[in-house]
Amino acid sequence: MESYKIYLEEKDMPTHWYNIQADLPMPLDPPLNAKTRKPAGPADLTPIFPEPIIMQEVSQERWIEIPGEVAEIYKLWRPTPLVRAYNLEKALDTPAKIYYKNEGVSPPGSHKPNTAVPQAYYNKVSGIKRLTTETGAGQWGSALSFACNFFGIECVVYMVKVSFDQKPYRKTMMQTWGGLVYSSPSSRTSAGRSILEKEPDTPGSLGIAISEAIEDTVTTPGTKYSIGSVANHVLIHQSIIGLEAKKQLEMTGDYPDVIIGCHGGGSNFAGISFPFLQDKLTGKKDIKVVAAEPSACPSLTGGVFAYDYGDTIGTTPLFKMFTLGHTFVPPEIHAGGLRYHGAAPLVSALLNHKVIEAVALRQNACFEAAVIFARAEGIIPAPETSHAIRAAIDEAIKCRETGEKKVILFNLSGHGLVDMFSYEKYFAGELLDYDYPKEAIEKAMKELPV
Amino acid sequence: MESYKIYLEEKDMPTHWYNIQADLPMPLDPPLNAKTRKPAGPADLTPIFPEPIIMQEVSQERWIEIPGEVAEIYKLWRPTPLVRAYNLEKALDTPAKIYYKNEGVSPPGSHKPNTAVPQAYYNKVSGIKRLTTETGAGQWGSALSFACNFFGIECVVYMVKVSFDQKPYRKTMMQTWGGLVYSSPSSRTSAGRSILEKEPDTPGSLGIAISEAIEDTVTTPGTKYSIGSVANHVLIHQSIIGLEAKKQLEMTGDYPDVIIGCHGGGSNFAGISFPFLQDKLTGKKDIKVVAAEPSACPSLTGGVFAYDYGDTIGTTPLFKMFTLGHTFVPPEIHAGGLRYHGAAPLVSALLNHKVIEAVALRQNACFEAAVIFARAEGIIPAPETSHAIRAAIDEAIKCRETGEKKVILFNLSGHGLVDMFSYEKYFAGELLDYDYPKEAIEKAMKELPV
Repeated sequence: MESYKIYLEEKDMPTHWYNIQADLPMPLDPPLNAKTRKPAGPADLTPIFPEPIIMQEVSQERWIEIPGEVAEIYKLWRPTPLVRAYNLEKALDTPAKIYYKNEGVSPPGSHKPNTAVPQAYYNKVSGIKRLTTETGAGQWGSALSFACNFFGIECVVYMVKVSFDQKPYRKTMMQTWGGLVYSSPSSRTSAGRSILEKEPDTPGSLGIAISEAIEDTVTTPGTKYSIGSVANHVLIHQSIIGLEAKKQLEMTGDYPDVIIGCHGGGSNFAGISFPFLQDKLTGKKDIKVVAAEPSACPSLTGGVFAYDYGDTIGTTPLFKMFTLGHTFVPPEIHAGGLRYHGAAPLVSALLNHKVIEAVALRQNACFEAAVIFARAEGIIPAPETSHAIRAAIDEAIKCRETGEKKVILFNLSGHGLVDMFSYEKYFAGELLDYDYPKEAIEKAMKELPV
Repeated sequence: MESYKIYLEEKDMPTHWYNIQADLPMPLDPPLNAKTRKPAGPADLTPIFPEPIIMQEVSQERWIEIPGEVAEIYKLWRPTPLVRAYNLEKALDTPAKIYYKNEGVSPPGSHKPNTAVPQAYYNKVSGIKRLTTETGAGQWGSALSFACNFFGIECVVYMVKVSFDQKPYRKTMMQTWGGLVYSSPSSRTSAGRSILEKEPDTPGSLGIAISEAIEDTVTTPGTKYSIGSVANHVLIHQSIIGLEAKKQLEMTGDYPDVIIGCHGGGSNFAGISFPFLQDKLTGKKDIKVVAAEPSACPSLTGGVFAYDYGDTIGTTPLFKMFTLGHTFVPPEIHAGGLRYHGAAPLVSALLNHKVIEAVALRQNACFEAAVIFARAEGIIPAPETSHAIRAAIDEAIKCRETGEKKVILFNLSGHGLVDMFSYEKYFAGELLDYDYPKEAIEKAMKELPV
């Protein structure tokens, strides 16, 4: 038996991130200023992002150097292991080779610090002392608290009330790294106060939390805002996942036939797949690349490719993306990180050009796959990640039927140790097995801004 | 900057465990049959352990081969990284070099699977289909459920009721790996039923849970019992920690001046230190080796070296060990894994011979150290592990004062992600800062059996 884990040494960690914009077969539709409907420029973003982030957001450069201070923090957990899932292959009796990239080894437990660390760094070098953000399930707020701690930046997290109350572990993780966590809606912002006045018992929503974070940002000197997915600069930072995986696979002599990531806003999916997609876009390799999304919130498989707001209440510029409509509120599923109405513009453009594919999956099937994985490989995956695992297992089962020896690579975006409540519900048979919420999507589609 | 993480490759993982009994300066006092007070032989253990485990328990062989099937499961997470804590050194402004061995990377999150996996294996090859155990904080029950899953053994865990109710995440982790978890006292055993009759609202205790597990074992055909600490065979299996650390430190050219592990029953402390103690016992090196225990349950610093029962209600043979008296019930502290009245006989004998040292620490000081560590190194440690970190930080601060460039090695026995409730209490200032519970200890001492 060969090694299970393929390690890169710290000295062999990639020195540059990859920016897929340099290799796109088509120019990306620009974001539009929501009022003028004209292309939004860097100036539209200055109130909330520092200059280096804005420059990355619009950059066409293929390779962007990873700053030394960021690399030093990365090395606390990176390079992450690539693992050959021998035990899963055996459990599935498949001739396929299955590899997974384990991003769950970061201290906050997911891929999110890959972008939180450089964002905190670029804010620090821009003289920013305070960052705000929102968090739903808690993975992103944890990652940003973790990252800000290393650069002496105060991290203010607006956490959706229902998560704040139901996920005290996540809140305490953020506090351990020095984050300040507020239940949203809060009385700290006028947006929060007006909601609380109308509806004191509201469970909150990601849309409200974003509004509070942005209001806090633009009304507090020395403060900027930080986003955990969707934006181009986030996807650039996450490319470290795929760049490492590529080096590690080279060490084995294999190249993936199929690459899979779960999909919410698009950051971990882009992270694992974009560095390989460079080979597809430049005609060097043919790869099947699959985004696995929840059927309860199927932006890629059930949405339209249109201009829409990035947030639920319509304060951001308009982005050309696959969307279910910004007013769509997804059913409550345990993969909280995948409950987003839209998709990253870069992922959307690639899907629209049929460079990638998407599949929508139900909760029970995903948790079933997660338990198969946990019993074979040991690691209990995050509910979000279970979507990638379901899709990977389905590919491996197809190989069992056809006899094909495909190489399947998926991203283990995070572990599930702080999400065991969702497994409890699964074992109790209490998970709601949502399929496409057609009527709600149709209603939201009518409220698209363009 | 050199590498933070020092990896061993899977092919360089140690092939044998180390048994310190071969190098002891004195013979170990034998366990006594509680009724006859005569040395207990292998036959005393046959009702609860399979033969290969009993042979290891009494073995004097220095090196014991790790079976191939065990090594294959180990490789899912082993070798674990040894990490140079550059950021912690910087935060403490110390000239000391601090290394930690990260056992938190195992899927259950601690060092416990190092012995759970071989125990499950040896039971499997002995034809055993079912293993019982008890768990308090939940780390051990998780590890044994994880291990049994790989060998097709049914794992039955009696979980102390108060933990079962307050730590649903742990319970669900065990179920994810296929473990059957019962709240103890349960109505499944006569021991459980008699307690429930007298005291229906009892919070349970580790002592009761042990009794239930052992009763289940001896009354159910094809069933054996598995123990997570204290016993010689457990300490042998845990030697993999220190053996790997030794190889990894060799790669850096450093050798530890001080080695620290937290101490409950003794398994992770022995794991990190015994392979280095071989060098001390054979006169090759002088090392300071420190067991860090909670001041609320100070068996090593506040107990006596005497024969006592291994369990609270007196069903086991008598072991010569440092003990607070088997009837001593430690105050409730969040380091649940360190709430044990005794200490491993091997650790006890070494302390009695002044080969090792011990220190008792309070909860708040330990959590303070844990937060310093989390903010410097990223990882949030388990409450148990925080004791080792406090002791390591204290050594490093001493070096700052004296200017000594000591090499400090400690065992990061587990992460704290499933124990964030304890951090919440710490931040809220609600931790009880127990010191030696003198009266309770004096009372228990009077009830020593010999």
